[in-house]
Amino acid sequence: MEWLTEGSITTPEGFWAAGIACGIKVAGKKDLAVVFSETPCVAGATFTTNKVKASHIFVSKENLRPQKATVRAIVANSGNANCCTGQKGIEDAKRMCEIVASELSAQRQVNVQPHEVLVASTGVIGVPLPMDKVEQGIKSAVERLSREGGLEAAEAIMTTDTKPKFAALQLELNGKIIHIGGIAKGAGMIAPNMATMLCFIGTEACIGRKALQTALKYAVERSFNSISVDGDTSTNDTVFVLANWLSGGDEILESSEAFVKFRTALTKLCQKLAKAIAADGEGATKLIEIRVTGATSESEAKAVAMTVANSNLVKTALFGNDPNWGRIAAAVGRSPAKVNQTALTICIGEFECFRKGEPIDFDKDAAHQWLKSNSEIDISIDLGLGNASWTVWTCDLSEEYVHSNAEYTT
Amino acid sequence: MEWLTEGSITTPEGFWAAGIACGIKVAGKKDLAVVFSETPCVAGATFTTNKVKASHIFVSKENLRPQKATVRAIVANSGNANCCTGQKGIEDAKRMCEIVASELSAQRQVNVQPHEVLVASTGVIGVPLPMDKVEQGIKSAVERLSREGGLEAAEAIMTTDTKPKFAALQLELNGKIIHIGGIAKGAGMIAPNMATMLCFIGTEACIGRKALQTALKYAVERSFNSISVDGDTSTNDTVFVLANWLSGGDEILESSEAFVKFRTALTKLCQKLAKAIAADGEGATKLIEIRVTGATSESEAKAVAMTVANSNLVKTALFGNDPNWGRIAAAVGRSPAKVNQTALTICIGEFECFRKGEPIDFDKDAAHQWLKSNSEIDISIDLGLGNASWTVWTCDLSEEYVHSNAEYTT
Repeated sequence: MEWLTEGSITTPEGFWAAGIACGIKVAGKKDLAVVFSETPCVAGATFTTNKVKASHIFVSKENLRPQKATVRAIVANSGNANCCTGQKGIEDAKRMCEIVASELSAQRQVNVQPHEVLVASTGVIGVPLPMDKVEQGIKSAVERLSREGGLEAAEAIMTTDTKPKFAALQLELNGKIIHIGGIAKGAGMIAPNMATMLCFIGTEACIGRKALQTALKYAVERSFNSISVDGDTSTNDTVFVLANWLSGGDEILESSEAFVKFRTALTKLCQKLAKAIAADGEGATKLIEIRVTGATSESEAKAVAMTVANSNLVKTALFGNDPNWGRIAAAVGRSPAKVNQTALTICIGEFECFRKGEPIDFDKDAAHQWLKSNSEIDISIDLGLGNASWTVWTCDLSEEYVHSNAEYTT
Repeated sequence: MEWLTEGSITTPEGFWAAGIACGIKVAGKKDLAVVFSETPCVAGATFTTNKVKASHIFVSKENLRPQKATVRAIVANSGNANCCTGQKGIEDAKRMCEIVASELSAQRQVNVQPHEVLVASTGVIGVPLPMDKVEQGIKSAVERLSREGGLEAAEAIMTTDTKPKFAALQLELNGKIIHIGGIAKGAGMIAPNMATMLCFIGTEACIGRKALQTALKYAVERSFNSISVDGDTSTNDTVFVLANWLSGGDEILESSEAFVKFRTALTKLCQKLAKAIAADGEGATKLIEIRVTGATSESEAKAVAMTVANSNLVKTALFGNDPNWGRIAAAVGRSPAKVNQTALTICIGEFECFRKGEPIDFDKDAAHQWLKSNSEIDISIDLGLGNASWTVWTCDLSEEYVHSNAEYTT
């Protein structure tokens, strides 16, 4: 397995993309992306668990419903979530698919049906989409489609992100070189179970729908569902993966060694993009990895890690470079998991702070200096109760987070 | 029922208190409080649900264990949580009770046993108590005890609070006038299920232990367990209520009308103190009341209200006077309760923003102005599914919250 620099969703063969500005956002910023596959794809998807869902989720789910559904394109806008927009919102999302299908069919002489298009939106909630702009934008984006368009598509799905997120890797599977490449966005409203993040992934792998969905679910659980910026799960989170089978060769069957290899590579790609989201959290100055070991189950380990990752008191302390392990202990204790404080051990980086219920007299000045001089911080929590573990990623909480969320409607 | 100005735990007959500075905090700030009852009291208590618990909780619970346990005093320090301090922490908490008992016995010619003293701490986690200072402090506090000491005791339990919290009321019960008065603290690490808050309440009511505990549990659920500043449940939260029976008259039995009257008054007192805590949340500029109606059960209504109250995105929007109801809808949707977005209605103050799944074109400028000119904000959320309701209180999230929690070890 090998990482490719500047890789994205257009790294795998057969995928085209474009990102343009159509006027949803102010100041001419890119706000509309189209991804197109030369051949019909098998698709997998995961969506937010929020019970208030954006319009695009209903439409994309519907298009993925038929057992033999194939996908040819993804359309996504930023700057408007098309969520809580009532019946008009659903119609607008459907209309986006229709325009993509008709523009692709007209401009590229391919036969694409509206139900072969997946749609996604991200941005402010409760405002109707400006459909005239969106319609013009889709036309321009389809015109601009190129084999190098992945990076501009990554830019076009950004909201408060400070940088576009993209990654690709290659690996050998069943004797063929395949690529997995993706683009993602997300900076605020990031929490477990699909927070406002979008991620679109392409691959040439020959893999069936059920196996692809199984691999995606596994990868998302260990990546996008294991990051948190602010504990606010969005209404819009969406991950799409498209496999166009262009690699040729044998199908990757769920029981095979090739499947495990594919799933591992997909998980690594998703983790790379997820960590980029956490590191780019609104106002973040540090990427924080929280590893919980010694739990009685993976779900207990994850519950502890997520509670710590969502603690404002832990995150503000880390912003202030304060090795305040007491706040970590308090967050561990209020998690829903089984916790026995006399079995609990906490380390910040190499500094052991608390061992099996007793405080350790560690060098607080050295720990402060270490926190101050590192932008990637690891926290280890050993519950001392079992053998299961889990890792999550988050960021610190700065004044800038409050400032950007108080000043701007996002 | 009547509120008394400047009322506190020393308003009811027979309660004495003092608050002094013994050097746990820097700069000569008050950090040790003692409350004393002339006569043995029946006591009720509730403690944090955090699984990492401060030492005082183990000791106070132990002292309350015997069926016929009576209480004569409370001792509390601020500036140090005596939590995650291992075996020494437990011994220190026990020692605090011993010193109070021996000083009271020596200085006041009363026979007080260590197990008749309840103890509480609040402050930084993981640092051993400076017991020499605490010992001297308890001696001075017992010397200073007075019938007017409630307000200085309220000051002595403050941490990042900007003002002391105290309240008292009087009512007629079974033909006698009784008082219920209390002091409280809390500003950060405030969340459901007893966040770093301490509250000590006294009353002359003639009420048995079981009835007192039942009334307290009811009151705490609707007050301290219905506020949130930052979602971080503390390791130290404690509420004590002492009833000294000095009112005379009939006992308040759990099945009686007098009990309901007492419970209502106790709930109102706890709500007043709880709202004072929420309004004084670290960096807060607004007190926010969130009322959820139309739920299928009270616990579902509370779950929705608490999820909204803990949403950083909602709280930063309110700090910025932004009527961003979409963030409220998103928080409602990610709560664990049953939510149907086509039945959901959201109002900010008098401004209806979202009605049964459709956005309302309300006057956003007027809403912004209204938010800007009010320090008490009410949000109404109608789930449209049933008849149950619940109310919680929180505050907005400002840059000052981040600043104070990043700069200071608390």
